[in-house]
Amino acid sequence: MAKGRITIAAIAEELGVSVPTISRVLNGREDVSEKTRLRVEEALTRHNYRKPVAVNATSRPADLLDLVFHEAGSGWAHEIVRGVEYAAGPEHIGVVLSQLGGSHRPSNEWLDSIVARRSIGVVLVLSGLDAAQRHQLDSRSIPYVVIDAHGDPGLGVPTVGSNNWNGGLVATRHLIGLGHTRIAVISGPADVLCSRARVDGFKSAHDEAGLACDPELIRWGDFEKTRGYQHALELLQAPNRPTAIFAGSDYQALGVMRAARELGLVIPRDLSVVGYDDLPITEWLTPPLTTVRQPLKEMSMLATQMLISIARGEKLVSSRVELGTELMVRESTAPPLS
Amino acid sequence: MAKGRITIAAIAEELGVSVPTISRVLNGREDVSEKTRLRVEEALTRHNYRKPVAVNATSRPADLLDLVFHEAGSGWAHEIVRGVEYAAGPEHIGVVLSQLGGSHRPSNEWLDSIVARRSIGVVLVLSGLDAAQRHQLDSRSIPYVVIDAHGDPGLGVPTVGSNNWNGGLVATRHLIGLGHTRIAVISGPADVLCSRARVDGFKSAHDEAGLACDPELIRWGDFEKTRGYQHALELLQAPNRPTAIFAGSDYQALGVMRAARELGLVIPRDLSVVGYDDLPITEWLTPPLTTVRQPLKEMSMLATQMLISIARGEKLVSSRVELGTELMVRESTAPPLS
Repeated sequence: MAKGRITIAAIAEELGVSVPTISRVLNGREDVSEKTRLRVEEALTRHNYRKPVAVNATSRPADLLDLVFHEAGSGWAHEIVRGVEYAAGPEHIGVVLSQLGGSHRPSNEWLDSIVARRSIGVVLVLSGLDAAQRHQLDSRSIPYVVIDAHGDPGLGVPTVGSNNWNGGLVATRHLIGLGHTRIAVISGPADVLCSRARVDGFKSAHDEAGLACDPELIRWGDFEKTRGYQHALELLQAPNRPTAIFAGSDYQALGVMRAARELGLVIPRDLSVVGYDDLPITEWLTPPLTTVRQPLKEMSMLATQMLISIARGEKLVSSRVELGTELMVRESTAPPLS
Repeated sequence: MAKGRITIAAIAEELGVSVPTISRVLNGREDVSEKTRLRVEEALTRHNYRKPVAVNATSRPADLLDLVFHEAGSGWAHEIVRGVEYAAGPEHIGVVLSQLGGSHRPSNEWLDSIVARRSIGVVLVLSGLDAAQRHQLDSRSIPYVVIDAHGDPGLGVPTVGSNNWNGGLVATRHLIGLGHTRIAVISGPADVLCSRARVDGFKSAHDEAGLACDPELIRWGDFEKTRGYQHALELLQAPNRPTAIFAGSDYQALGVMRAARELGLVIPRDLSVVGYDDLPITEWLTPPLTTVRQPLKEMSMLATQMLISIARGEKLVSSRVELGTELMVRESTAPPLS
């Protein structure tokens, strides 16, 4: 690329516009007509103009919001990111992504950087914040909204969640309806509210069918593949093994499917499996996975819209919103072998 | 949360520090000793201090870089994000995520917002930029690095890629070594360099084994599940069907696996399948997928480090870097039925 050492002043003269007009185009300001912008852009390209780096320092800051994951590698991270981006894009708000609790970005620094970049606020995935961190955000008037996919955000915190109890209920009703009577559940951690809500839905479905619930078949995991695999190996090797397993996440269901395969059990003939989340890959698995759909993208869109409203000083209609869950019946569930 | 209407001045007096010191802590500045910072933080918490929103406007901007995806929903997006975050975190650089070409964030605006937020530069995934866009970045002295996972970035653009030709070679050698003689490939688009490099590696492996390559068995796809499925359905229903399929991405391999299942073919007994990328889910599939590992996280780490170097005015050792690919042999490949 050639070095065009032409100045803004020369371009301004050539086009018959003012120097500040050229600067406004270069600095991404909106107070320039589209027609002028196009003419300036064309001249900049033609002259191969390159702005001296220092000029950047005079431009205005842009609107940004922070999206914070508490953990890396979550299977549904991408769905969440898409929803946030979808809501922030039309508002011309950039999305800064960071991982709180990741070893390489300590929390103090993270907070400082949010302040320094003048973020309009924070969308948090998983609760993650302790009282002190919450206060740090409050003290700097940085609003935040929690996407409560897997946690309990604390009192007074605006939240978007989904109906976990109902998810547990419909998944278990489906299995009972197919004729299963020995059904196991591998949920998330016992101290996380959403896990407990799902297990309670699981129990309620048993109650309403007049079916006893074997406590041996209720397992607490961590939503990850490996724990799903380990629990399933144990469950499936026990005498009087379950004929169906309801997993706390699609990733845990992948672990269950591997355990079944290793033990020579064919899904759904020998074992029915239900997942949770409805990640895009689930319908492509062998067999396609029956799962409870959490509307992750919609949840994060809504959380982002709520954050923007708060940042603008608007009043929220409600600060705790829960979206519905829905059972997606595919091919991993069938009546038990009689 | 109670309304503590205490002022910075009152806290400064109480602690015996200056008002600017308190402001520095609130604004995320680094020129405060850790001891003082902790004392100030403690007092802010104790008094439940909340900064008036307007104070934000005086803080310094933070370092940011932009990570741009050309398309939504890519299976490997999350791996790339992790690598960028991993490299940017220790440098205290925030990562802004955006999708160029997404209908909701037009390209002009995107460029303006990069300028406005004073991004140190851009990491681009997929080539995506046309000459005009490239010039727009150049004219504003915004450096960029392309992660060339699937594309050709253009002359003179710093790039991190991986060895696609070698990936095609080792995958095909593996299948030939197992005894396959009718091997199909479903690659990416024919006009994308990496697809062609992989197919050339595929052909070279045939050449070195003295094996003819049936042109009917070379298919061009788009890296997505549906095209993999459609091509596989066609290939597997043809007379003299292939006994092995090399897919251009793990997602395309998912499509191939579905097609096989629907036709009653068991993998690997009736059909061997090799994927490309080595996404984290591949080892959890039924059966676990043999695939070519692209070091996506390492590629994006390296691209980010290159961008930071360029932004700091440092000289790059090399502006075009290619990382190695590696075959991960799992359970989706086996000798053909004789």
